Amino acid sequence: MINKVKRDIPDQFLVHDVEVFQGQYYREGYEYRKAAPKVKASIRPQESKVVSDLKEAIIKSELRDGMTVSFHHHFRDGDYIVNMVMDAIHEMGIRDITVCASSLGTAHAPIVRYIEDGTITGISSSGVRGEIGEAISEGKLKNPAYIRCHGGRVRAIETGDIHIDVAFIGAPTSDLYGNARGKGGKSDCGVLSYSMVDAEYADKVVVITDTLVPFPNFPPSIKQVDVDYVVVVPEIGNPRKIANELLRFTTDPRELLIAEYATKALVSTPYFRDGFSFQTGGGGPSLAVTRFLKPYMVEKDIRMGFAIGGITKPMIDLMEEGLIGTIVDAQDFDLTSIASVHNHPRHFEISTSQYANPMNKGAFVNKLDFVILGALEVDTDFNVNVVTGSDGVVRGAPGGHVDTAAGSKCSIIVAPLVRSRIPTIKDSVITVTTPGESVDIVVTEVGVAVNPARTDLLEALKDSGLPLMTIEKLRDEAYQLVGKPEEIQFEDEVVALVEYRDGTLIDVVRKPKKIT
Amino acid sequence: MINKVKRDIPDQFLVHDVEVFQGQYYREGYEYRKAAPKVKASIRPQESKVVSDLKEAIIKSELRDGMTVSFHHHFRDGDYIVNMVMDAIHEMGIRDITVCASSLGTAHAPIVRYIEDGTITGISSSGVRGEIGEAISEGKLKNPAYIRCHGGRVRAIETGDIHIDVAFIGAPTSDLYGNARGKGGKSDCGVLSYSMVDAEYADKVVVITDTLVPFPNFPPSIKQVDVDYVVVVPEIGNPRKIANELLRFTTDPRELLIAEYATKALVSTPYFRDGFSFQTGGGGPSLAVTRFLKPYMVEKDIRMGFAIGGITKPMIDLMEEGLIGTIVDAQDFDLTSIASVHNHPRHFEISTSQYANPMNKGAFVNKLDFVILGALEVDTDFNVNVVTGSDGVVRGAPGGHVDTAAGSKCSIIVAPLVRSRIPTIKDSVITVTTPGESVDIVVTEVGVAVNPARTDLLEALKDSGLPLMTIEKLRDEAYQLVGKPEEIQFEDEVVALVEYRDGTLIDVVRKPKKIT
Repeated sequence: MINKVKRDIPDQFLVHDVEVFQGQYYREGYEYRKAAPKVKASIRPQESKVVSDLKEAIIKSELRDGMTVSFHHHFRDGDYIVNMVMDAIHEMGIRDITVCASSLGTAHAPIVRYIEDGTITGISSSGVRGEIGEAISEGKLKNPAYIRCHGGRVRAIETGDIHIDVAFIGAPTSDLYGNARGKGGKSDCGVLSYSMVDAEYADKVVVITDTLVPFPNFPPSIKQVDVDYVVVVPEIGNPRKIANELLRFTTDPRELLIAEYATKALVSTPYFRDGFSFQTGGGGPSLAVTRFLKPYMVEKDIRMGFAIGGITKPMIDLMEEGLIGTIVDAQDFDLTSIASVHNHPRHFEISTSQYANPMNKGAFVNKLDFVILGALEVDTDFNVNVVTGSDGVVRGAPGGHVDTAAGSKCSIIVAPLVRSRIPTIKDSVITVTTPGESVDIVVTEVGVAVNPARTDLLEALKDSGLPLMTIEKLRDEAYQLVGKPEEIQFEDEVVALVEYRDGTLIDVVRKPKKIT
Repeated sequence: MINKVKRDIPDQFLVHDVEVFQGQYYREGYEYRKAAPKVKASIRPQESKVVSDLKEAIIKSELRDGMTVSFHHHFRDGDYIVNMVMDAIHEMGIRDITVCASSLGTAHAPIVRYIEDGTITGISSSGVRGEIGEAISEGKLKNPAYIRCHGGRVRAIETGDIHIDVAFIGAPTSDLYGNARGKGGKSDCGVLSYSMVDAEYADKVVVITDTLVPFPNFPPSIKQVDVDYVVVVPEIGNPRKIANELLRFTTDPRELLIAEYATKALVSTPYFRDGFSFQTGGGGPSLAVTRFLKPYMVEKDIRMGFAIGGITKPMIDLMEEGLIGTIVDAQDFDLTSIASVHNHPRHFEISTSQYANPMNKGAFVNKLDFVILGALEVDTDFNVNVVTGSDGVVRGAPGGHVDTAAGSKCSIIVAPLVRSRIPTIKDSVITVTTPGESVDIVVTEVGVAVNPARTDLLEALKDSGLPLMTIEKLRDEAYQLVGKPEEIQFEDEVVALVEYRDGTLIDVVRKPKKIT
């Protein structure tokens, strides 16, 4: 069935009430009963939930063939938990496992062998990068992978579309009764936002820590009332890879120009007013926008009401200068952000449900004025692809892209016109992750295109001095520079489903044809 | 059917899997699927959830005849919310409502007329004091009232034994998206612990505040993701009655002697060691124990690890003196405690599920060393009554009594031997609220009785210098002073069910016979 962004979703996936994508607010007002976990009551006085090792926790959790386990990615490229747990599961001979991760990265390449040998047969993740993405695109995973944005993952858990049997939560600190925090310890990641929902909805919850602290470890990100077992291991991650100070402060003149245009677009809209709210990604141009905003804010005596999202040093710098009222934080990307969420009285951890779940009673993204986002590709319908590379292989991650684009009043995509002689703006993106109706402004170094549906923004920007042009003109400029790209050839086999944040299917990813 | 504390529970109440009480840890390991609310998704960008008034919130919440509404009692005798909401419900002609309150007090006497006219036909509450208790004992409520302790109420909500259709949550502060706190505003109550579970499990959640604050009101006790509507009213309570500094520092020599004995008993047990945990009630002797503990702690260089419960000034004083590591707080009884939970970095708000729910994966009471509790009556099986007065009328509240007695390693009941010429220690209590197996030591001004099941405590106390005696001897002393009391005569009609914390029935309350 053809969906609203003109993608053909094979009927075989439209079962069990799964529908095709029908618009960003299609499920506004949708009523459902939340999912709920099975719980084993713990009534007796009890000193400790610590078990001797991971295998004991797996046995006690009654993990069996065909079940689903979950992980968070706050430790990013420094994560040891996924491999540690999957090694144990594999050694115990448990098979046919679905891995429900908030994201998977290069640190998890070793699990490709478990995809190949049938230990892992299903994956739900935002990111599927590197070797895992290649394995998926090669069709090695038994079932199509689910690509879920951050809000979509939480929605799937809270609606029961995905049920977590056992959540394995790596925690920088825990007490022996399972109160766990993202703060402190040897592998400090600041927050545990992705895991907060897992802890509430999984049948069994195993906290894995390398730093046991005195009871009670408060205030907890993960609460003792939701935790079954605590496992103490020597190391949960590589602190040097979890966060560092090496922010990419771009000096690329093209990226700086894009950031300058994006900032100018932002401050030309009526939403740039005292108390505005803002999120930005971690890419070079996005980070530069945060820095470029400051003089405009100071000049007009405008403070930001709140900032959300993955948090980075430029945001903390603005906060320290008194230009941001509150930061609500679902992930920390550097040491400065981690230090701030520990210490600043107006920098708070939130769950990813609070951040971006489209199906709760109102997430933070619903109150967002601006978001600055990257893109691998943008097409003339303003659809964005952040999942498949120019070779058609899955290698990206929607993250909060889809959520913030839908929730914000003004979403701004920043991207170079071409990359490595491949056009970014084109007739049709390989994979639609964020629908064009959620995308308001596309900024390249050559020109700025406003979504024609946003006549208000076109009006607001008309005297901004920005090089405004149509998206078709941007595409033409790109094609003129590097030529129209050849279409990637795919086989029929679907290797991944791209689920929109509300649970409908916005696209599928097929196996790229081998170039022979 | 006769239950484990020898009470006859009429078969008519043993339906839908309801069982009689079978021991304090009978449901250890009991497996169940948690309840879950119906949710209406809010996907679109949205500025505000504020509606024009309470009636609009009630209409939008689709409250109908036969439904259940919930309230908290953090505002205590200063609460305006229950009457305000029930007035509106009555004016709108909605009938057959069950009120699921964490407790009801003298402030709520006006709702007796709604019991009488059929607006309210069911009540679930810890306390049913004053005129409401009398109305219940007179059989005016259509259905028997459920007396639920704090842990039992949360358990009933989380297991789905009681389903809240609309939670009305009075909040000292809220933003227009429903992030609500117990802190700040005109009616500051410190914490909103009782309501945290209501917000997560009710289908519709209405926050009622008199102080709208800027978004986001963080960190929230009640989260925007759980809130449907916000109502702003002129006043949610009478601040002078919510909390005051008039602590009852007893000067009654009998109460002081009881406190001295209780303290001596406590410090003679092996659990009085560095890092011990402690809860005490708000009565005169209980508060005195907290003060009397200090010299023993200082002398032995022992610090309290954590204190829980309803919090009072003597506890805060100990904390300020560095003698308590952490306070976890489910209710504040005075201004000092409210100030502390605002300001002290180791004084934290917890939900009543974290506090005392027997059916989650481990509440704080499970890790409690000592609790000091009052009693209206204690019998020779160590059963305690805190619900019915000596006239058989419901007028008390189990509160956290049942939960802490079961969870703690050493529960100490403090009570005068006789009250107004009525014995406190007797052959059989009128109503069993806390089973004798949960009660370890009974302290009166005449003597101290240790539960014979606790041979370890008998051994520990044998050289303490305390006037140890059997519970039968205490009863005899009481009877000798004031005579054996005449048994209250009851009719067959059951007016209230006393649910044990795990959902089994521990006793029923019958309608007292009119003395003619």
